[in-house]
Amino acid sequence: MQRERIGEVCRTVLKRIVPSEKQRREVEALAKRLERRVALAAKEFGVDAEVRLTGSVAKDTWLSEDPDIDVFLRVPRSIPRKRLGEVCLKIAGKATEGSKHVERFAEHPYLEAFVEGYRVNIVPCYKVERGEWLSATDRTPFHTDYVNERLKPELCDEVRLLKRFMKGIGVYGAEIKIGGFSGYLCELLTLFYGSFLRVLEAFAGLRRRLIVDIEGYYNGRMDELALLFKEPLVVVDPVDKGRNVASAVQKEKLYGFVAAARAFLKNPSVWFFYPSEIKPLGRGQLEQALKNRGSSLLFLVFGRVEAVPDVLWGQLYRSLRSLRRLLALHGFSVLRSACWSDEESLNVFVFELAQKRIPLVKCHLGPPLEKSVECERFLRKHSGRPETVAGPYVEDGRWVVLVKRQYTDAVDLLRDKLKNGRSVGVAEKISRVFRDEGFRIFVNGEIADLYEENRGFARFLTEFLSGKPRWLETVSG
Amino acid sequence: MQRERIGEVCRTVLKRIVPSEKQRREVEALAKRLERRVALAAKEFGVDAEVRLTGSVAKDTWLSEDPDIDVFLRVPRSIPRKRLGEVCLKIAGKATEGSKHVERFAEHPYLEAFVEGYRVNIVPCYKVERGEWLSATDRTPFHTDYVNERLKPELCDEVRLLKRFMKGIGVYGAEIKIGGFSGYLCELLTLFYGSFLRVLEAFAGLRRRLIVDIEGYYNGRMDELALLFKEPLVVVDPVDKGRNVASAVQKEKLYGFVAAARAFLKNPSVWFFYPSEIKPLGRGQLEQALKNRGSSLLFLVFGRVEAVPDVLWGQLYRSLRSLRRLLALHGFSVLRSACWSDEESLNVFVFELAQKRIPLVKCHLGPPLEKSVECERFLRKHSGRPETVAGPYVEDGRWVVLVKRQYTDAVDLLRDKLKNGRSVGVAEKISRVFRDEGFRIFVNGEIADLYEENRGFARFLTEFLSGKPRWLETVSG
Repeated sequence: MQRERIGEVCRTVLKRIVPSEKQRREVEALAKRLERRVALAAKEFGVDAEVRLTGSVAKDTWLSEDPDIDVFLRVPRSIPRKRLGEVCLKIAGKATEGSKHVERFAEHPYLEAFVEGYRVNIVPCYKVERGEWLSATDRTPFHTDYVNERLKPELCDEVRLLKRFMKGIGVYGAEIKIGGFSGYLCELLTLFYGSFLRVLEAFAGLRRRLIVDIEGYYNGRMDELALLFKEPLVVVDPVDKGRNVASAVQKEKLYGFVAAARAFLKNPSVWFFYPSEIKPLGRGQLEQALKNRGSSLLFLVFGRVEAVPDVLWGQLYRSLRSLRRLLALHGFSVLRSACWSDEESLNVFVFELAQKRIPLVKCHLGPPLEKSVECERFLRKHSGRPETVAGPYVEDGRWVVLVKRQYTDAVDLLRDKLKNGRSVGVAEKISRVFRDEGFRIFVNGEIADLYEENRGFARFLTEFLSGKPRWLETVSG
Repeated sequence: MQRERIGEVCRTVLKRIVPSEKQRREVEALAKRLERRVALAAKEFGVDAEVRLTGSVAKDTWLSEDPDIDVFLRVPRSIPRKRLGEVCLKIAGKATEGSKHVERFAEHPYLEAFVEGYRVNIVPCYKVERGEWLSATDRTPFHTDYVNERLKPELCDEVRLLKRFMKGIGVYGAEIKIGGFSGYLCELLTLFYGSFLRVLEAFAGLRRRLIVDIEGYYNGRMDELALLFKEPLVVVDPVDKGRNVASAVQKEKLYGFVAAARAFLKNPSVWFFYPSEIKPLGRGQLEQALKNRGSSLLFLVFGRVEAVPDVLWGQLYRSLRSLRRLLALHGFSVLRSACWSDEESLNVFVFELAQKRIPLVKCHLGPPLEKSVECERFLRKHSGRPETVAGPYVEDGRWVVLVKRQYTDAVDLLRDKLKNGRSVGVAEKISRVFRDEGFRIFVNGEIADLYEENRGFARFLTEFLSGKPRWLETVSG
């Protein structure tokens, strides 16, 4: 019965994601043309490159709605690491002349071009033997070969289902913004478990840790593996046993997938794959919602950061963690936090605090009595000091004082500390924006203007306020 | 040098606490007369009692300022346990006819009388062999014998110093109100360590636990002892190896003694023995102090509790702990708490809260993802409920929601819960007072009237606000 419903849902989804014959021919023809053009351009620049189609198009695991074409440019080791990006960008630019270009950045720069309506990534790597990796992308052609040799045609659609499911619940994509599952990871999981459904079942049953070692590299040496990898999800790369394909998967994404898998198996629905659009609250609704909420929302808003997306998001997340820690260290209870960026000119950190103003007085624990030197220092420091409200007194075998806090208002704290953001752990490029262009802080309803002006931010904030995963929203109604 | 200063301080103190020859003669003569009168009264009532002087007068360890005379009435086992108090009160009343009387209560009732300006306690117990205890006081005559046989005359003044020191820092007295060191305990410690100073040194060096087994009952069986007694200070009773003489010593008192001993050894001063009087703040000063403090003081005030002091204080402390727990459970940060009583018609609980009103929203942690049944129940319960502010969402491998609290004001919480105090752990007699006579709650400055009217309470509150031990006040001040 449940199986039937799952089958039904999958068939409905497959209709949307399996490329049609026509689309397939079109994409494959374009890919072939691109390969030739890139090879030609390389020759023109005198680079002895091997050009290879990789990625989901090469492996026939792409979604019809998302036909990215990845062309790899394998160059000789004689080209120095530093010039690799530059050389490739030149070749790629030439090969896609006349198309719209964006320079992207993973470990090194690559070119994203839009050709005949398709997104094309042209990525440099070294032509090396397996195991002799010089750059991170050197493995990719081997990944493509590995999957192509093993993934039976009937499994390709299973990979597509898994990818679409992960997209729907927001855990697909290894880029830093997402921190989720890569396409290659989806392929390996499908290979290992044998179907979309079995992957879901495996993750639904996740206890502490999940380890997948397809090639059995660590057979009989699991304790070695446990020492080597610390992540809760480990998928040993079949082409490099020292690498965890899932190392970029953030815990929240892993556990989000686990929760969604479990919910889907109970209540299969197309909504997991295609969640309903978020309808942002109207301005009045937003203001009402913030008023009724009881907590305090702090928005730290700032302008353009000069960085490619992966760097931008890395710095955003790092800074968010630091600021959250800063607030917590000063006694503010940060219930939740998030960041949002249009990747152009507007960036926002949101902190949901239990309260914006906290009590003046706090308990400060001193040393336990058995540490007599520390005790003396503590007594000397706190006895009769203006910051001391009460004590020092002995409680549970240690000295304690009640002292006045330095900051009781979160906005004061942030304003004061962000004057010199670097010292509180704000990442460099963002800190520079704070210093040169400043930042604005809004509390609760003060954000309404910005909210009204920016639909992307409005969608983000509406979802943040709900706090539920989209699939739980639609499933539990 | 330090030793010399300590010696000087001790000599100054001894001048005040060693009884003069005249006083000694007076007290000893009175004690003899009382013994005779009690024996006579017992005979009149047909009770075959052995009358014995016990306590500090019998052992010559009393302080001149505090000459309590303890007369024990050892009665035959044939008198039933239930009638022991009654029989003794009759005899004691007769023996002290014409003096002021107060009935007291330890394990059973005894009589406190004021005869010729001295306080006299007449206490019943059973005449039993050692080890065949029928009531707690049966051991006392054995304690007196044990100390008298071993405490050399030159050590008596050392005991006096220790007692006075403990009085000065507020840790002397085994009654429930104090929860400190008994006189017998002071005697045993002096016996064991050999002098006042060596007792201080031993406690100043306290690490985790201090175990004193004078008679060596547990030689070679220390692990058995560790299982038998759980308290941080264990002094095995020489007349009953199953009893810890220090079992009534509260942790705060023990550690208070440790801290004071350490401070005294560094900075010997008469102030430890005789702290300066607490001068209550004036009404205006109090109001100013409360205003500047930043925290919130809650006073729960109620009237007479029908109970002898030991029962009253037991119920006060128990109720205080329960109310503190109640506040903490509802998210209030209780920095400190205390209770005060005039033991007649006025009782006060004080809670120092970081804040009286707390944020509406709190984080509620759900089950970890691996517990799938609990997770489902959690999602069913919290999804789309009016109390749910945000979520459920997954964080660190478990479900979490932000929910609204039931109480955000500590006064509301207390008023509501104390309607039926028993269910939140308020002790019975106090709960009855709440129910029958009600209670009042004051916040911060609202206490000023009561403060002004009652000097004992004013002294207590002034000391509470400072929060420092008296000796630290005088030493570091």
